[in-house]
Amino acid sequence: MDRFSIASWFRHLQDLICEALEKADGKGTFREDPWKRPGGGGGKTRILANANIIEKGGVNFSEVHGVLSPDGAAALGVEGHDFFAGGVSVVMHPFSPMVPIIHMNVRYFEVSSGERWFGGGIDLTPVYVDIMQAASFHKHLKALCDRHNPHYYADFKKQADAYFFIRHREETRGVGGIFFDRLGTEKKDPETFWDFIRDTGETFASLYPAIMIENKDIPYGKREKEFQLFRRGRYAEFNLVYDRGTRFGLKTDGRAESILMSLPPLASWKYDYQPEQGSDEAKTMKLLRRDIDWIAMAGPEPA
Amino acid sequence: MDRFSIASWFRHLQDLICEALEKADGKGTFREDPWKRPGGGGGKTRILANANIIEKGGVNFSEVHGVLSPDGAAALGVEGHDFFAGGVSVVMHPFSPMVPIIHMNVRYFEVSSGERWFGGGIDLTPVYVDIMQAASFHKHLKALCDRHNPHYYADFKKQADAYFFIRHREETRGVGGIFFDRLGTEKKDPETFWDFIRDTGETFASLYPAIMIENKDIPYGKREKEFQLFRRGRYAEFNLVYDRGTRFGLKTDGRAESILMSLPPLASWKYDYQPEQGSDEAKTMKLLRRDIDWIAMAGPEPA
Repeated sequence: MDRFSIASWFRHLQDLICEALEKADGKGTFREDPWKRPGGGGGKTRILANANIIEKGGVNFSEVHGVLSPDGAAALGVEGHDFFAGGVSVVMHPFSPMVPIIHMNVRYFEVSSGERWFGGGIDLTPVYVDIMQAASFHKHLKALCDRHNPHYYADFKKQADAYFFIRHREETRGVGGIFFDRLGTEKKDPETFWDFIRDTGETFASLYPAIMIENKDIPYGKREKEFQLFRRGRYAEFNLVYDRGTRFGLKTDGRAESILMSLPPLASWKYDYQPEQGSDEAKTMKLLRRDIDWIAMAGPEPA
Repeated sequence: MDRFSIASWFRHLQDLICEALEKADGKGTFREDPWKRPGGGGGKTRILANANIIEKGGVNFSEVHGVLSPDGAAALGVEGHDFFAGGVSVVMHPFSPMVPIIHMNVRYFEVSSGERWFGGGIDLTPVYVDIMQAASFHKHLKALCDRHNPHYYADFKKQADAYFFIRHREETRGVGGIFFDRLGTEKKDPETFWDFIRDTGETFASLYPAIMIENKDIPYGKREKEFQLFRRGRYAEFNLVYDRGTRFGLKTDGRAESILMSLPPLASWKYDYQPEQGSDEAKTMKLLRRDIDWIAMAGPEPA
């Protein structure tokens, strides 16, 4: 397992995800923009826009290398100054407010001082939070984690709750998922985590298409579309204010269009929006909290 | 001139601006939300929504005091740990893409170590940049500055160009204006600048209403509305990624709704938007540059 085989697998993962998303969408095809990074490396940004289920989304592959700026090294807390970073990032914004927004990322980082690690995560942002849907999503992530280590799910879910949190709103972005970073910097070689990383990517490639198909025919109206615009505003706030990948990318002169493909096609901000008491919107706002055990909350599965 | 008289004048300025904006708008009235800051002080947020010319806007007054967190002190580069901060902030998002977005801020800061200073600025963000309009706006700001110091305009315009810049896009937010900070920390007592601060607030209170009225009847269509959504996306990017007031406020647990009243009512993001060559949109994108001398560019006034 070296940077070449890792990058090559990431390239394969991008294909796998794009094919699965196109198949589930049924209409759209990705448009590819290859780009080069002046300092070294480059990527392929693939964009789906105005498709059938997906209004706007991107699947980015990148493998960049070069000299780490002092700012970049400080931000990462590393000493080496040559670096290699590769990964795949996905964000999908569906047309329908009944189909949740998804985000997935797997990445590998290596610095010349010898440190190397994996990071990544998957988190779901439904416009309307549905406990059963959240539980089903988390069950898939738990099964993925449990295939590798009995502690992963609890640990990575906790990290997702902490990370995908809009602090100034005291709201989570959505129903969380899993988040992990620096897999490989402590006791173990990153090699130990390579199977888990690949399983994460492959699990995602089937998990989100299934969610798209399951929810695409749920009817909705003007009210749900409005709430979607509001929830997308929160999504934009998270990405621009807190998301480390976004902020690190923009600070280090990453390709802005590829980084900001995560922003929603259309979003709204209302001053001091308060949902009607007892409404579905109010129920959702109450569920945008950390440390909800979705699987337990949903209760036992029907026999 | 002490914090009490300064805060009292800021309160008066909020009234003055709200009255002038309501009069120019012709329909809307501000809704007021008074709030208290748990650590000390508070403010009055006034919001105009779905009015005649203005789609969404706010005029904030705040006077907060308390203990500065180590983070806050470091961000400000000061040592004292008790602080007082007061000011008025305005952002207006008009319905019409032909009426520019405006931002104005005047503020006063004082820390227990004895440092005290004023800051502030006015900048205009037209959806479509019009050189004559930009020049006229800058002439008013130059006249304001020239009433106080022959060096202010050149200095503060340069600072506005540097500050209202979306680095990752290599675009300015709009046509700039004036920006100043730490007036009072170097050689002079802030008292010296008090007349200028008041003149800035009062000039704004007549300048923007005139711009509203001048442009409100210009016809536009779907294309202009779409470009407005795109330009508002950039506005949101600037505020969430770079604006120091926004980031400082969110970091120090400021009132999120008051801080984020600056965000547009509706905004869009398209992947890799490229305006048609030679179009008005393309002309605007070319004019979103720093260090344009708008007054010189517009040429001599017709006799």
